[in-house]
Amino acid sequence: MTTPAAVAPRISERARRMPSSPIRRLMPLAEAARARGVRVYHLNIGQPDIETPACMREKLAKAERVLAYSPSGGTPEYVASLSAYYRKLGFDLGPDELLATTGGSEAVLFAMFACTEDGDEAIVVEPFYTNYNSFAGLAGVTLRPVRATGENGFHLPPESEFEAALSPRSRLVLLCNPNNPTGTVYTREEVERVGAFCRRHGLFLVSDEVYREFVYDGREATSALSLPDSDDFVIVVDSLSKRYSACGIRLGCLATRNRDVHAAALRMAQGRLSPPGLAQLVALGANEVGPDYARGVQVEYQKRRDVLFEGLGRIPGVFLAKPEGAFYFVARLPVKDADDFAAWLLSDFSHEGATVMVAPASGFYATPGLGRDEVRIAYVLNVDDLRAAVKVLAAALPRYRQERGL
Amino acid sequence: MTTPAAVAPRISERARRMPSSPIRRLMPLAEAARARGVRVYHLNIGQPDIETPACMREKLAKAERVLAYSPSGGTPEYVASLSAYYRKLGFDLGPDELLATTGGSEAVLFAMFACTEDGDEAIVVEPFYTNYNSFAGLAGVTLRPVRATGENGFHLPPESEFEAALSPRSRLVLLCNPNNPTGTVYTREEVERVGAFCRRHGLFLVSDEVYREFVYDGREATSALSLPDSDDFVIVVDSLSKRYSACGIRLGCLATRNRDVHAAALRMAQGRLSPPGLAQLVALGANEVGPDYARGVQVEYQKRRDVLFEGLGRIPGVFLAKPEGAFYFVARLPVKDADDFAAWLLSDFSHEGATVMVAPASGFYATPGLGRDEVRIAYVLNVDDLRAAVKVLAAALPRYRQERGL
Repeated sequence: MTTPAAVAPRISERARRMPSSPIRRLMPLAEAARARGVRVYHLNIGQPDIETPACMREKLAKAERVLAYSPSGGTPEYVASLSAYYRKLGFDLGPDELLATTGGSEAVLFAMFACTEDGDEAIVVEPFYTNYNSFAGLAGVTLRPVRATGENGFHLPPESEFEAALSPRSRLVLLCNPNNPTGTVYTREEVERVGAFCRRHGLFLVSDEVYREFVYDGREATSALSLPDSDDFVIVVDSLSKRYSACGIRLGCLATRNRDVHAAALRMAQGRLSPPGLAQLVALGANEVGPDYARGVQVEYQKRRDVLFEGLGRIPGVFLAKPEGAFYFVARLPVKDADDFAAWLLSDFSHEGATVMVAPASGFYATPGLGRDEVRIAYVLNVDDLRAAVKVLAAALPRYRQERGL
Repeated sequence: MTTPAAVAPRISERARRMPSSPIRRLMPLAEAARARGVRVYHLNIGQPDIETPACMREKLAKAERVLAYSPSGGTPEYVASLSAYYRKLGFDLGPDELLATTGGSEAVLFAMFACTEDGDEAIVVEPFYTNYNSFAGLAGVTLRPVRATGENGFHLPPESEFEAALSPRSRLVLLCNPNNPTGTVYTREEVERVGAFCRRHGLFLVSDEVYREFVYDGREATSALSLPDSDDFVIVVDSLSKRYSACGIRLGCLATRNRDVHAAALRMAQGRLSPPGLAQLVALGANEVGPDYARGVQVEYQKRRDVLFEGLGRIPGVFLAKPEGAFYFVARLPVKDADDFAAWLLSDFSHEGATVMVAPASGFYATPGLGRDEVRIAYVLNVDDLRAAVKVLAAALPRYRQERGL
């Protein structure tokens, strides 16, 4: 074999631009802290500690002897269970309006590719779920942010800002409701306003509603499916991950009454053959999960939110509006560089043998420079651990400010 | 809410272009045949009937009570099991060279996006695995085919054809070895020739080796990882689907020693959070699967191949070279339009209460008009069913030719 000298091939620019996880840089620091014997409270991740319902896990005993492909759009049984779930919410969605996806992630991916060409734009409220960057990056789509602020509880900015973000290449608005990372639950009026904006400008509304059940103080999440004219422009991203504390099974769905979008997503789904089969088996148990489960989870998370909201609110210089849903919020801290603070917490600080890992918020913004003094906090730990984490942060902030001369 | 009249948004051209499954049109015909009481032998799909090893399925009993996210690149245990598997093949691949993917499909997707920009080109031997069209479509990549022919056992065409397919936008060669749909096992010399071609022109070699264990008559599959200069341009796509008859779990991997490609694929993997967790649990049982399993599967498939090869070879006008690997082959039939023949088999014909479903080969070609008289046959049925299927085809072909005036 002759192999004349040649330039080694290089990866693509779009692969180069693909963002790495904003907390990845912190992971080795957390491991080092643990290695020093420091207990690390993880407020940085959205992995719930709640058990996956036993009636779901038990379905695994029924796995076939051949773990075979399922239909690309999902097993009829799984799709029927989705239909039943949506019927309880008041939405009548049939098998041609529901498509099984590999987590909510794949539903975002399918929606993005179904709605856009390379070079198109999507409008998104920032701060936003950082992985939208990844899907936009793959699709060659530029995210045009409209800014929400903590003072306003991260509710929607005025219509004029949406208008200002429009361009001839705008194809969709991507809304996460209830919101990750801010915990904001948009009101019905807000959802209607976004819907009317999309309608007026011929945009798709991609509504990521995976935290639908996680709403507090008697709130209700408004699904974009409830918009009276939603048939041809609304695409809902859904997932079993948070609803049933089953993040690892990777199962979700795309729900839309737009037949072209559904057909396009199904063609993409055929390309990857099928969604995870064991996950679809587990999902069948969801039919047996009673309303008590969701209520119990809601009560537990509301308690956790209260512990953190009250605890952090008492720390001088910390600002956060009361979170309304999901299990995250974005807090402003009396620091100049939350990345530095997050690293310092892991590397240079401990309080009574413990420290805290938080997610710096800059990765949740598209506008450079924003979120530098903010962190995303996830409350997926039990109440005692959250109280301990608050103590750590209360001790850490004055010390950090002193060390950095703030 | 005011909703002034607006044009409803339309799906993207790239979504419109996304091909639908080539056998999808035939599915309702197969269902109708079954409804008429006709037994349908499925030679159209690659879903093995072999049991997933019990030692793998049994791992499901160890599922945790919280079905949590796994690391984006795979659990350390799964990645270690991949390492161990590759070590047995003679390749030393560490955790920075292996990445867990959601089936081999996602590995193709990651490789495609890591290597190309929208508008780039990939060279592929046709006929090829039809779902490459889907991943290329998402990535905006044009597949440039070089043609293999049945007379040559679908082995590689001369170098000059690869040269002719080159353009300034060529970024990679996508090779499936052993080949789906042709069953061809490329010789070491052929793999080296493709490697040298890639090397000379600065292209990546994406080598889809998911049928590695399915080789007959004492052949060995040559992994592109064995190319002596493979470190910076070889990307291997792998999957547990066929190896352990576990298609439905959706677990595979991307293997490459190119650090940039690995890092880019990991960033894409972080975007979708994690590969299926239950699948990774099942995969741990693969460590306990002895060499007897692969040998037994190989013996069984070789027997099946022989039954089909001999049986079909005796039907006048049918041409196929002896298949060397995988569990497919492409056969030429004495028909003008295999799509029409496949539909006719399901709608207008039965022999002793049975008929056969085959995959028309035109969907496996990029060049319009090619493969019109060919079908892909999968031999994933037991030997008795295959013999019965041969009888059906032997009775069907003269009848079809007569009816169509051929």
